[in-house]
Amino acid sequence: MAGVAILGFGVVGSGVAEVLRGNGNHIGQKLHSNLELKYILDVKDFPDSPFGDLVIHDFSVIEADPNVEVVVETIGGIGVARDFTQRALKAGKSVVTSNKELVATYGYELMDLARENGVSYLYEASVGGGIPIIHPLKQCLAANKITEIRGILNGTTNYILTRMIRSGLSFQDALTEAQEKGYAEADPTADVEGHDACRKICILASLAFGRHIVPGQVPTEGITKVTLNDVAYAERVGYQIKLLGRAVQEPEGKLQAYVAPHLIPTADPLSGVEGVFNAITVKGNAIGDVMFYGQGAGKLPTASAVVSDVMEAVNRKNAAKYLDWGPGGEDLISREDQPCPWYVRVAVGEGALASAIEGIRIIKSDRAEKEESAGLTGPLTAEMLKKCLSPLGLQAAFRVLED
Amino acid sequence: MAGVAILGFGVVGSGVAEVLRGNGNHIGQKLHSNLELKYILDVKDFPDSPFGDLVIHDFSVIEADPNVEVVVETIGGIGVARDFTQRALKAGKSVVTSNKELVATYGYELMDLARENGVSYLYEASVGGGIPIIHPLKQCLAANKITEIRGILNGTTNYILTRMIRSGLSFQDALTEAQEKGYAEADPTADVEGHDACRKICILASLAFGRHIVPGQVPTEGITKVTLNDVAYAERVGYQIKLLGRAVQEPEGKLQAYVAPHLIPTADPLSGVEGVFNAITVKGNAIGDVMFYGQGAGKLPTASAVVSDVMEAVNRKNAAKYLDWGPGGEDLISREDQPCPWYVRVAVGEGALASAIEGIRIIKSDRAEKEESAGLTGPLTAEMLKKCLSPLGLQAAFRVLED
Repeated sequence: MAGVAILGFGVVGSGVAEVLRGNGNHIGQKLHSNLELKYILDVKDFPDSPFGDLVIHDFSVIEADPNVEVVVETIGGIGVARDFTQRALKAGKSVVTSNKELVATYGYELMDLARENGVSYLYEASVGGGIPIIHPLKQCLAANKITEIRGILNGTTNYILTRMIRSGLSFQDALTEAQEKGYAEADPTADVEGHDACRKICILASLAFGRHIVPGQVPTEGITKVTLNDVAYAERVGYQIKLLGRAVQEPEGKLQAYVAPHLIPTADPLSGVEGVFNAITVKGNAIGDVMFYGQGAGKLPTASAVVSDVMEAVNRKNAAKYLDWGPGGEDLISREDQPCPWYVRVAVGEGALASAIEGIRIIKSDRAEKEESAGLTGPLTAEMLKKCLSPLGLQAAFRVLED
Repeated sequence: MAGVAILGFGVVGSGVAEVLRGNGNHIGQKLHSNLELKYILDVKDFPDSPFGDLVIHDFSVIEADPNVEVVVETIGGIGVARDFTQRALKAGKSVVTSNKELVATYGYELMDLARENGVSYLYEASVGGGIPIIHPLKQCLAANKITEIRGILNGTTNYILTRMIRSGLSFQDALTEAQEKGYAEADPTADVEGHDACRKICILASLAFGRHIVPGQVPTEGITKVTLNDVAYAERVGYQIKLLGRAVQEPEGKLQAYVAPHLIPTADPLSGVEGVFNAITVKGNAIGDVMFYGQGAGKLPTASAVVSDVMEAVNRKNAAKYLDWGPGGEDLISREDQPCPWYVRVAVGEGALASAIEGIRIIKSDRAEKEESAGLTGPLTAEMLKKCLSPLGLQAAFRVLED
């Protein structure tokens, strides 16, 4: 029998309680030990909840209870969640979290604290909701050198883009609909500006490359500049617009990570990922490409990942503890310096290039002859594009995904 | 330093040697211990191979060497592979395998022997090549009751069907091409008759449902009856023909597992899986649907899964050992008894129904009025179809996948 405490009784926290109770017999059989939900910490009371009698308001009760082996942190943010996580780890309890912001920002520090105290800090639920991706990266793909990870990491923006593509809704109308359906929050900034995807690609990149990459190092662009014209133009030339988080290790070892809208060719499996679904592809030097796909959020899928991590923490109680990644550093490559093919939209009629390209063009990094009229020399980077195309009426530029 | 021996220096075995050597530094860092490839057992010598000096012919050398912690079995089949696996486990060595036939047939017995001897028997590479699926099922989805698994589990047949669909090749021409490209063996029986997919769905079903399901219990139909007409008809009504392995737990707990060609609606993510790729979807009561996608075979992808399992075996050396599944039983549901929608092809002009349906029809399990003319009463099962439609010229019947 292992005691469990949940911090924060919101959507994910209450889902964890439901899965622990509803699948209790199944979990006991698989784990060869039962899990007992002992406490739920929240600032509020929940008198009408079937779990209402477990609610407490004082973290020190959990901290002091030797029967609590695993603390589930579903508070979110990097304030009190970090404090409670540190205290739980120091008290010799494993911590399982769905808090991507905390893992992306302080993951190394917290893992190191866990290792010092001989316990686990597990975060499968922080990326892709219930989709298994953290453990497969740690374990099933461990024999590989990972060279690239890219993913549709945010269901809200993918829903908005899907509605724009499939039904011709404007960005604003699709956002309003997503809010009405509960797929987007009242303040959608973290989703539509790419911050949520940024935290997730930080976690994946840190794990894949073994060093902490923090959100401040990852250039992040959301989908607010994508227009219906872009969607239509992209489709005409066989592409779909998707918001990707991407992390790449260059052959010489340099790393880059960023979040930005991309044009994805229809043949790429990521192009078929629609609605609130997420998908992540991983490229390794032995495995080639593998893809993981599923609901990237939602109460029960996320709770499923949390509870599986709780089982893992109990299961590995006596196993040796290692760091999933090391400390960070300053030596990431700037995305601005990396040549790649670009989709550009310019104001028609505002210059020589504009009329030549009739609104849009896919510009390969090795460039066709025509672009020379715009003064493009050398490989096409973001900086170059802005410099050369701005006088000609550049309105938007999206990276084009190529293998 | 942990010693490793490879049994069988064929495609996968030599890939394992390459990954162990090529990614040695990376593996050492991740594992916090080095792996040393000590022996390669084969009946032949390989004087020109860089690993030629490791080749031996006597298994008892491996059995007696206390420094060999992990034995990799890539011999295949259920003869000598089973014998060596038993001897290695009894000698206190963990065994890692890519041998789906052995795991599907004797998995329970070998896991039980591993548990008795305090070692691991790991088989991530036996399903889906390098695609992580076994560990995610065991671990990341552990909190779920799994209700269904379905997958495109055989790259050879998927390649053949893709060539029939995309390029209009006949089954025979597509098979010949697959053989020329090395995707199909000279004797393609195990692939095209569905035996390979059958072994894989047995392993997945056993793991998901916790009891051994063996190939003899799983009705298996390959793709040899699929014609270009079927492909064209299916496409006309918005479906793709794919060979699926499928295992379902009915709400009342009964299990069924089978391998058969299915018509899959274009909106299903499995319908876009082309060529030699594999994909597996898992449905759980908390997670909903998740999908795993990648190359289902190939030297290095499969070797990647094997070597990751070797690392896992070393890593978990001192962890408690449990059985992944229990012994089997006789109580599976026969697929013949399960109503579902069917695609049928009948000889046009050979009866009332035939002319009414103009060659093909999707017959829902709740049936439209027209089918009553064929004497169909009650839910549509395979038995009923054969009985009622055979006099009318039934030529082929494929299940239609529905949610």
